[in-house]
Amino acid sequence: SQGASEEEEEEDAWQDEEYYSTYGTLVGFFESLLPQKNAAIRQQIIVYAVEASSMVEHTRELVKQNACEEVVTVLQGRAEEIQLPEQVDVLVSEWMGNCLLFEFMVESVLLARDRWLREGGMMWPSSAALTLVPCQAHQYYSEKMAFWEKPYGLDFTPLQPLALQEFFAKPKFSHLMEPGDRLASPADVICLDMHTLQVADLEEMQGKFQFRLDKSGVFHGFTAWFSVCFNSLEEGGAPVELNTGPDSEPTHWKQTLFMLDEPVSVHAADRISGSIILRRNPVWRRHLTVTLHWDISGHTQEAAGMKSFPMWR
Amino acid sequence: SQGASEEEEEEDAWQDEEYYSTYGTLVGFFESLLPQKNAAIRQQIIVYAVEASSMVEHTRELVKQNACEEVVTVLQGRAEEIQLPEQVDVLVSEWMGNCLLFEFMVESVLLARDRWLREGGMMWPSSAALTLVPCQAHQYYSEKMAFWEKPYGLDFTPLQPLALQEFFAKPKFSHLMEPGDRLASPADVICLDMHTLQVADLEEMQGKFQFRLDKSGVFHGFTAWFSVCFNSLEEGGAPVELNTGPDSEPTHWKQTLFMLDEPVSVHAADRISGSIILRRNPVWRRHLTVTLHWDISGHTQEAAGMKSFPMWR
Ligand SMILES: [Ca+2]
Ligand SMILES: [Ca+2]
Repeated sequence: SQGASEEEEEEDAWQDEEYYSTYGTLVGFFESLLPQKNAAIRQQIIVYAVEASSMVEHTRELVKQNACEEVVTVLQGRAEEIQLPEQVDVLVSEWMGNCLLFEFMVESVLLARDRWLREGGMMWPSSAALTLVPCQAHQYYSEKMAFWEKPYGLDFTPLQPLALQEFFAKPKFSHLMEPGDRLASPADVICLDMHTLQVADLEEMQGKFQFRLDKSGVFHGFTAWFSVCFNSLEEGGAPVELNTGPDSEPTHWKQTLFMLDEPVSVHAADRISGSIILRRNPVWRRHLTVTLHWDISGHTQEAAGMKSFPMWR
Repeated sequence: SQGASEEEEEEDAWQDEEYYSTYGTLVGFFESLLPQKNAAIRQQIIVYAVEASSMVEHTRELVKQNACEEVVTVLQGRAEEIQLPEQVDVLVSEWMGNCLLFEFMVESVLLARDRWLREGGMMWPSSAALTLVPCQAHQYYSEKMAFWEKPYGLDFTPLQPLALQEFFAKPKFSHLMEPGDRLASPADVICLDMHTLQVADLEEMQGKFQFRLDKSGVFHGFTAWFSVCFNSLEEGGAPVELNTGPDSEPTHWKQTLFMLDEPVSVHAADRISGSIILRRNPVWRRHLTVTLHWDISGHTQEAAGMKSFPMWR
């Protein structure tokens, strides 16, 4: 284990190599926003496409293949370091990660905003919200925990503490919550205005919640997801929302499940109140810890709990 | 990249640390075979449970929890190095990997067999077969390759060679073939007798096939899976089969899909003949390369092809 900690010291705490090699495949977002039909509009628009990884070569190829060279200038570099010839009217970036903030690509976007977005310019997305709901997760609980009670007629319960550590200590990404698994109406617990959010705000973000359960069931944990809003460039125009929640078409982000250590039986009209705190890791800058506090109050019981979930360190 | 090759030289080509930490979770197999009900039989049976990883502590705990200490002796060590007090009548091991041989745990089992199975003793599994079928894979092809043709109304075809390399150069593990996707009846292409198989045989294994297509469609690739057979300990008793194919209950192995570089239109009554060769990597001893040769002959066309798939090096 001494070897392991030496290795950690030598590693780049931003993990940029891994990060950029993953995100290098996300080309095409700028291209998809280009108006195809109106040549007059095309001539007025100047797009600077910024890509840090070697995927930039493919971006250039795609711009050429789609005859957009007069509109799109492709620049290689990090958004926070790049030099643009001028300030811009709109800054577009797909920076969202699991549970909204994971990987903290949003920092690069905020730094680029402060340097290159003109006064009064538009951020896309313009705002973002993290949504939470207390939920059941019978199937996941049964697969990962209840399974050990009597597999093949034998008593495997001594392995349950291992299973708890293996499966419930960290959040489950890629969860698709069934509509019937929510115990209450979801609530936005953290809201970000992309025009005013500061990098320093990312170190610790806190939200409060108070849910009134609309049915009885088993409280296995909380499911979280995010939505982002693109404000219209036209005065009074309707915003466009991308919602990654269970009532929308599934996206590759899916939802994130935070499992309690022990399921709790709850009843309709019980209240679950508490808070969520997202603390950015001071060393591993792409990671965070999510801490949930909850109080259950109802006519049959009172219970409280707290649990912290590293994502991933 | 010089750094990378130095790193590779220092790495253990058996990758034992990764391997044993993964397989340490597979306890419980021996326990599940124990007769629970008949105390007379229990007293006659002696089980030596061999586990290389630190999971051995949990194995001991489970033996105790299920009151089997008089039957099961848990020994820590590698199957190929362990000392047993006596030769055994039956050797049981779950050594199968994706595409049957991946990770080559079978080698440890053969070495243990040669040292510790008594003359005329029984191997469980007793035999194993790798099965192959030419198939369609419209959905996978469409997701990974056809997608780039016109996403969001733009021409992304310059990325197709990258997608080919990313998704079709290696086999797809965890494929669940739809029954309607098979173009012919599956055929066993490699059969192993666990009583006579030799470690040296594992270096290169070859099988031949000749499929007669029972429907027209698109030949996207081959799907492979395995089955294993447990012969009865009683003279004339029926064997028990574990089949991981598409007509059986899905297992965690699922099936393995080998995609051609280009889909080929085929017709009912066409023949696809050829061979499969599994070559064990001479350096990375848990890895192999699967090479497929095929000839399509029909009344409308003749075509032939060859492709090698590393798993994973
Ligand atoms: Ca993202
Ligand atoms: Ca296995």
